[in-house]
Amino acid sequence: MRTQVVIIGSGPSGLLLGQLLAGAGIDNVILDRASKDHILGRVRAGVLEEGTVRLMDEARCGARMHAEGLSHEGISLAFDGRDHRIDLFGLTGGKRVTIYGQTELTHDLMDHREEAGVLSIYEAANVTPHDFDANAPYVTYEKDGATHRIDGDFIAGCDGFHGVSRRSVPERAIRSFEKAYPFGWLGILADVPPVDHELIYANHPRGFALCSMRSHKRSRYYIQCSLGEKIEEWDDQRFWDELRRRLPAHHAERVVTGPSFEKSIAPLRSFVAEPMRFDRLFLVGDAAHIVPPTGAKGLNLAASDVHYLFEGLLEHYQDRSNAGIDAYSARALARVWKAVRFSWWMTKTMHRFPDTSDFDQKIQEAELDYLTHSRAAATALAENYVGLPF
Amino acid sequence: MRTQVVIIGSGPSGLLLGQLLAGAGIDNVILDRASKDHILGRVRAGVLEEGTVRLMDEARCGARMHAEGLSHEGISLAFDGRDHRIDLFGLTGGKRVTIYGQTELTHDLMDHREEAGVLSIYEAANVTPHDFDANAPYVTYEKDGATHRIDGDFIAGCDGFHGVSRRSVPERAIRSFEKAYPFGWLGILADVPPVDHELIYANHPRGFALCSMRSHKRSRYYIQCSLGEKIEEWDDQRFWDELRRRLPAHHAERVVTGPSFEKSIAPLRSFVAEPMRFDRLFLVGDAAHIVPPTGAKGLNLAASDVHYLFEGLLEHYQDRSNAGIDAYSARALARVWKAVRFSWWMTKTMHRFPDTSDFDQKIQEAELDYLTHSRAAATALAENYVGLPF
Repeated sequence: MRTQVVIIGSGPSGLLLGQLLAGAGIDNVILDRASKDHILGRVRAGVLEEGTVRLMDEARCGARMHAEGLSHEGISLAFDGRDHRIDLFGLTGGKRVTIYGQTELTHDLMDHREEAGVLSIYEAANVTPHDFDANAPYVTYEKDGATHRIDGDFIAGCDGFHGVSRRSVPERAIRSFEKAYPFGWLGILADVPPVDHELIYANHPRGFALCSMRSHKRSRYYIQCSLGEKIEEWDDQRFWDELRRRLPAHHAERVVTGPSFEKSIAPLRSFVAEPMRFDRLFLVGDAAHIVPPTGAKGLNLAASDVHYLFEGLLEHYQDRSNAGIDAYSARALARVWKAVRFSWWMTKTMHRFPDTSDFDQKIQEAELDYLTHSRAAATALAENYVGLPF
Repeated sequence: MRTQVVIIGSGPSGLLLGQLLAGAGIDNVILDRASKDHILGRVRAGVLEEGTVRLMDEARCGARMHAEGLSHEGISLAFDGRDHRIDLFGLTGGKRVTIYGQTELTHDLMDHREEAGVLSIYEAANVTPHDFDANAPYVTYEKDGATHRIDGDFIAGCDGFHGVSRRSVPERAIRSFEKAYPFGWLGILADVPPVDHELIYANHPRGFALCSMRSHKRSRYYIQCSLGEKIEEWDDQRFWDELRRRLPAHHAERVVTGPSFEKSIAPLRSFVAEPMRFDRLFLVGDAAHIVPPTGAKGLNLAASDVHYLFEGLLEHYQDRSNAGIDAYSARALARVWKAVRFSWWMTKTMHRFPDTSDFDQKIQEAELDYLTHSRAAATALAENYVGLPF
């Protein structure tokens, strides 16, 4: 089989890229080793920047997102028994974020792709990119007992941190930067109304907590936990009790509890691979970089990568110019590092670090105090949270 | 002898407090173990915030400072071969800093004190505060072979980090927070015109450099050095060569060199002691807190402590209210921690840290990139640099 762009990975970045390319008449095929149901079963992020919303519109997949997503104009930082609203809308000259689960967004993209009859191949085993350092790259995979081959002009590696794309690049060609944080997030999903109409980021001596949501009826709550924590030791009651302890009293007393239907522990990590282009292979989103979820940047960074790559491929096919694809890695990385910095800073500022010095703990408190009393500092937070321009 | 306020230390904070008190008719005596010449021989800071300038005016000692000080409306951050001006004036709604050496400021304060005939006792050995936890504190000292005693209502400990005041407080009553940085500053003074009309803070792979000044004819230059560095291994030529290497080319080629008349290495440290009041003993300035010099905050923090303490003592003597002195420690510390945070942040952002991870180095570069491209981030720097309000 032959196509123009072979996309590895049917998560939001692969699907969004595929949809944009298809809309511009550029042929593409998506390969994923997982099944469609498995992909839709993943619980991920839920805060979309305006740039991500715009890309969904550009891909003509934004209708349900606009109908069902919640528009948020602020977040709360809770510490020292009180909370301090960061007026995202007021501080950024009118920008908002949209609360819409990644699962829903993936669903919409898959549905539109199917309707348009663009090919996605699920449950493709041993997906392997080949010859991307030459002019005729191709990807092989196994399915139904046979090995298949798809030839293309380019390969887009949208297959996440553990995917094959980055691992296919010779080690000497790639430089990676990494930081592991000494804690994780224990998160639950429950069909209970959220404690507040906006997100609450809480820094408490017992650790960080986040009150997030998927809708007016579905809440997403997280608490910072140690890396050695065992999920089976956290029944719902223990989770709710611990969450309440970490919130200011006026929030804690309004938490509505109920049975969780998802509960998991995720470690926090920062990771960046450079460059993001290897001749005819492009890394996109989590395949190239991971951020801790504190700043809600993971999905949004994937979207900005897609934007830069789509622009580059469009220039290549429509204008016969390689300027855009040649600039892809540098453009994407410039924005990536800003978001990596912001996510690292939000993580550092909102969590309690085991073994931190008394001095560093006081600096964290001074930072929170400054942040909530300086319009400039709050604006810096707000402009990053709603998303720096593409 | 009896007075109202015994001030230990004849540096800028003790002198400024003494001058303000004297102006309000509150009797005070300054004791210092050093000689006047020794004190005036110290080379220290040289960047005054507007609040510090206002206090000098309030103390009626500002005439020469206004005549000879240089008014600066910006600073440069140099990295990656270029420099980026931070428009302090534009970003803060019209604030400036004044370049005026601490030595000159000390001189002015001493001269006015002498003219007004207010007592300062120099070369006082074994200065010791007594009974400050009771209603009748006093200070003893030795001079000319005899032990002397001064009784007062209050004792102001303005005697610096190594002074006797903080050391007189029982250990259990004090909590201290400290951070040592893994480098020092090698600084010189030379009578050569400064390389630029504003200060340049340079972050270079070889380490930090600062181009500062005392006047149009006197330059103050610093380079980051390791803690093991030996001053005798740094002749002037080696210093000038190293300084030039760390500056962008267009600055490096304009450095005017000449013989240095002062050269020293200082370690960098953050230190805060809490509280700053122990019944009738108050700690002021460096006696209670030290900041690394990167943010030019040391002298200015001492000045804001003096402001809070003077207001409190004025209320005590004029209004018979202890509200101000009771609030002294909390008020001073709230501002101290903000400045300690800023100084730590400037230090962290502008220096090269030995043994830093590749990830942390990239974060530093991302921070500088963000800082010089975001008005909000530049404003946060600027408002701290010119000084947060008292």
